[in-house]
Amino acid sequence: MAYDLWYWPQIPGRGEFVRLALEAAGITYRDRAREEGADALAADLAARKGLRPFAPPYLVDGDFAIAQVAHILAWLADRHGFGAGTLARDLELITVQLTVSDMVAEVHAVHHPVATGLYYREQEDAAARAAAEFRAGRLTRFLDYFEDALGENGGPFVLGDRWSHVDTSLFQLVEGLQYMFPRRMAAVFGGYPRLAACHAAVGAIEGVAAYRASSRCIAFNEDGIFRHYPELDGP
Amino acid sequence: MAYDLWYWPQIPGRGEFVRLALEAAGITYRDRAREEGADALAADLAARKGLRPFAPPYLVDGDFAIAQVAHILAWLADRHGFGAGTLARDLELITVQLTVSDMVAEVHAVHHPVATGLYYREQEDAAARAAAEFRAGRLTRFLDYFEDALGENGGPFVLGDRWSHVDTSLFQLVEGLQYMFPRRMAAVFGGYPRLAACHAAVGAIEGVAAYRASSRCIAFNEDGIFRHYPELDGP
Repeated sequence: MAYDLWYWPQIPGRGEFVRLALEAAGITYRDRAREEGADALAADLAARKGLRPFAPPYLVDGDFAIAQVAHILAWLADRHGFGAGTLARDLELITVQLTVSDMVAEVHAVHHPVATGLYYREQEDAAARAAAEFRAGRLTRFLDYFEDALGENGGPFVLGDRWSHVDTSLFQLVEGLQYMFPRRMAAVFGGYPRLAACHAAVGAIEGVAAYRASSRCIAFNEDGIFRHYPELDGP
Repeated sequence: MAYDLWYWPQIPGRGEFVRLALEAAGITYRDRAREEGADALAADLAARKGLRPFAPPYLVDGDFAIAQVAHILAWLADRHGFGAGTLARDLELITVQLTVSDMVAEVHAVHHPVATGLYYREQEDAAARAAAEFRAGRLTRFLDYFEDALGENGGPFVLGDRWSHVDTSLFQLVEGLQYMFPRRMAAVFGGYPRLAACHAAVGAIEGVAAYRASSRCIAFNEDGIFRHYPELDGP
């Protein structure tokens, strides 16, 4: 039976981290809100009971729903064999994957430092300060950490010659950062050869390449996590 | 063999969510940075290789290190039997636990909206706006979600009469929110009888009560996640 993925249909956002792993692994899924719209997503989420998702994305398999990007990916990796296959290594992958989630949250907070419920234009002064700080500090601190993780097994992937959910996520992180901070990424990314190699290797995975060439893959835009506001970028 | 917990020694912070579960379960651990200081923590973290923690807290068992609060707790729950004991339910607990982590990150961002690397006094204008928005919106949105989760099995705990890592975390969340937003929590907390019952039930767990009466349990302060700045609170 195919999985149902539920996520906001107009942005790649956090949903894309789940999609890329599904596509790389050739797993069949229905992208429900892309088919049925955001209202259907809101209705589905509101109708769920018990220990339910707090927010999209979530993946549904029959009666079971699982939320939180890193959690969804760890579960899929275990079921479909794109984790490490040993407990200690799988747990280490999850530690790294959760750090990807932390970076994604910090990236969103750059353009929404005051509140997610306000528009960017209502908080652009604070965002300008947040962006300058992020570009100068946290950006490379996170990239340094992921670069080191990719050195663990000789690359191009974290596990070596076999991709995992961490790699597809690092691909999307690099894509997003290059979209959001083109000047800053141009200035620093030369210092991250392993991330560049991982990015290239994930892009060459057959399922990823086919997905990204399809109309199902939508572009970054200024409603999402990664937004290109030139005033937030810098050298 | 006892676990080693590593976390910043001067604050309860994210480490406290791990400590409370360890104490509730009666699991022996060494609180390394409390014994040896913050420099020892920085040195230990810097010396780690490969797929290592990005930041404290992390828990070490021999050669293995695991980071990220929700991940540490899920792993401990599996090893020590304070999860649900069935896969689907354990996965659901992790979904909720990761939502606790999200709320903790948002709470921290209230007093540090611009950058974690700046002092509060360097961003207090943005923090005042962030706090007003948080008190009006996200605070009760999260609490509503946790209140619902506690209704799933009749309380006082998420699983019913047996505590899990989610309950000890909800206890700490309530403690922290009452410290940080005493006026706002006084105004709204009457609407959360299940959270109040869970809080009371966790506080009565023998290991938790003994720990909290000991000198090992330190008070909230203005270097931590939950900070009491009266100007950020309101009715």
